[in-house]
Amino acid sequence: MKLEDFLYKKSEWLRGTGPKSNIVVSSRVRLARNLDKLPFFNWAKPKERESALVAIADATSKSKFTKKSLFLKMKDVSEIDRQFLVERHLVSPEHVIDPEYKAVVVDEKEIASIMINEEDHLRIQILQSGFNIVEAWNMADEIDTDLSKHLLYAFSIRWGYLTACPTNTGTGLRASIMLHLPALVMTNQIGKVFQAISKLGLTMRGFYGEGTEAIGNFFQVSNQVTLGHRESDLIEKIESIVDKLIKREESTRNILMVKNKEEMSDRIWRAHGTLKSARIITSAETIKLLSVIRLGVDLNIIGGIDRTRLNELFMLIQPAHLQKIEGKLLSAEQRDRKRADIIREKLQE
Amino acid sequence: MKLEDFLYKKSEWLRGTGPKSNIVVSSRVRLARNLDKLPFFNWAKPKERESALVAIADATSKSKFTKKSLFLKMKDVSEIDRQFLVERHLVSPEHVIDPEYKAVVVDEKEIASIMINEEDHLRIQILQSGFNIVEAWNMADEIDTDLSKHLLYAFSIRWGYLTACPTNTGTGLRASIMLHLPALVMTNQIGKVFQAISKLGLTMRGFYGEGTEAIGNFFQVSNQVTLGHRESDLIEKIESIVDKLIKREESTRNILMVKNKEEMSDRIWRAHGTLKSARIITSAETIKLLSVIRLGVDLNIIGGIDRTRLNELFMLIQPAHLQKIEGKLLSAEQRDRKRADIIREKLQE
Repeated sequence: MKLEDFLYKKSEWLRGTGPKSNIVVSSRVRLARNLDKLPFFNWAKPKERESALVAIADATSKSKFTKKSLFLKMKDVSEIDRQFLVERHLVSPEHVIDPEYKAVVVDEKEIASIMINEEDHLRIQILQSGFNIVEAWNMADEIDTDLSKHLLYAFSIRWGYLTACPTNTGTGLRASIMLHLPALVMTNQIGKVFQAISKLGLTMRGFYGEGTEAIGNFFQVSNQVTLGHRESDLIEKIESIVDKLIKREESTRNILMVKNKEEMSDRIWRAHGTLKSARIITSAETIKLLSVIRLGVDLNIIGGIDRTRLNELFMLIQPAHLQKIEGKLLSAEQRDRKRADIIREKLQE
Repeated sequence: MKLEDFLYKKSEWLRGTGPKSNIVVSSRVRLARNLDKLPFFNWAKPKERESALVAIADATSKSKFTKKSLFLKMKDVSEIDRQFLVERHLVSPEHVIDPEYKAVVVDEKEIASIMINEEDHLRIQILQSGFNIVEAWNMADEIDTDLSKHLLYAFSIRWGYLTACPTNTGTGLRASIMLHLPALVMTNQIGKVFQAISKLGLTMRGFYGEGTEAIGNFFQVSNQVTLGHRESDLIEKIESIVDKLIKREESTRNILMVKNKEEMSDRIWRAHGTLKSARIITSAETIKLLSVIRLGVDLNIIGGIDRTRLNELFMLIQPAHLQKIEGKLLSAEQRDRKRADIIREKLQE
């Protein structure tokens, strides 16, 4: 398997077929782990960094879950491919800075990925389509258990798993659910939702755009607490809160469809018309318009486009993806044109 | 012939086939005439108003140019049909207020129309497609000459034709040319053009929108002086100035196509996409977008739509037209929806 294969392949979490995928894009679980007897990556000497990398690479090559996965040393990956991995959410933006001693392990379906020597020695990530956080947790747990047969983790009976940043100590677990909440945004309820989520010990942030400024009505809800609770309790809590959020978004959509069907339909078809017509388009505008079209598909206002194709477009319109498709480096202006071309092509299909 | 027949018929000036019709929508000549021995309409008593109406109606029924035309007394025309006549530029907005003793004569092709008892007893109007002001003048002159066989005009050897408003006295001639100048607007040259036109003794105003605020880049250039010059000199002057304006718009379009072809193309296709998709749309937005599409057709960026269809759309999207098509009165909201439906239908054809 090569990195190139991911370009035209639909990764599992983009299928848009999971539970409640009209509202939930993906469910993600990440476990932070470090090796015993070695300093955390940022404090480790080159030799220690190297030995962490070797030990983990060896373990992943033995584990039944990861032995067939793609193993990439970040220093062997081109600048554009690093960006490509970030855009596919397989590595963090931090992981591609200063690539020495860093690596990533990715399975064919892009469900499981393991960052080696990011802030922590291991970051095990499971990405599932739709509202599927329990399954994501179960898979992460299985991989973690299997790897621990080959690796000795830094673990304290008092604190749990030890991590470079104390906010991750304990379970090392972060569960994140990416939601599409256009109706709550349109009806100005999103501010209150932010506040409520925060009071419940979860965080919510715009998935695109800086800080809480959200583009395209995509939001990510994550747990903040990692210490002092069992993993299953943390998962259960986020699941139950997100379930309420989903119900609220759904009921708001229903109300909008009863009270403002024509305005909604106008807005959705205009977004569709613009995307099918533009010759130059930025990624920010594209994300906004795709968000509106996604709502149109979910509300059965627009037919003939499925969520898979929309999810694929969200992925393909990103800078590194565009440049890999074109097979060469592109300036921002060239990308804006290439993006428009690809969107027209994909919406024409 | 009935007023209804105009609804789905393409009037001559909307064909968009005249000279320079890529830039000139229409050429219009209007002659103001009054009957001798009768006070101007606004000073006339009911009986005098009636006798002016009778005399002119009689004359138009005898003239070879107008005897087959539609003759409509304004008081017999419904509210909606009066608005319909205004929208088709067959009568002035003033002519439908207080309709008693007022009438209009319109030929089948909507080239010639005569308002009876507007501000002046007669307002003879010729409307031609494209840059055709000489032909418009010749036709107006012929009809005027023919009518003068049956009517005695108020005429002074010193002042020429006498009119209710002194600004029309002399020739009673107003020549107006409606231009589409998107390139001069885009390149911010239109302000200077306004100033230059004014210094040359002509007036220029936005065709849609109040005052000089123009919607859709349509402008009307008219002569201001009517006294002290021969008609042919006035026509020649406006023709030569508009000719320069056309050349400037043309060269600016060429420059835009060389320097900004992709941005132009993006803008034009987006306008097209919005019009083909919207479910609710105001007339102001429609005019703006149709203007952009018209430019796209003129620059061969958009194919498959001809100017006739665009001109027809400019006409059909107006309030009275929409209501006549629907066959009933519509609220503003209902019109915005009906307008969007008609546009989609016409652009799909």
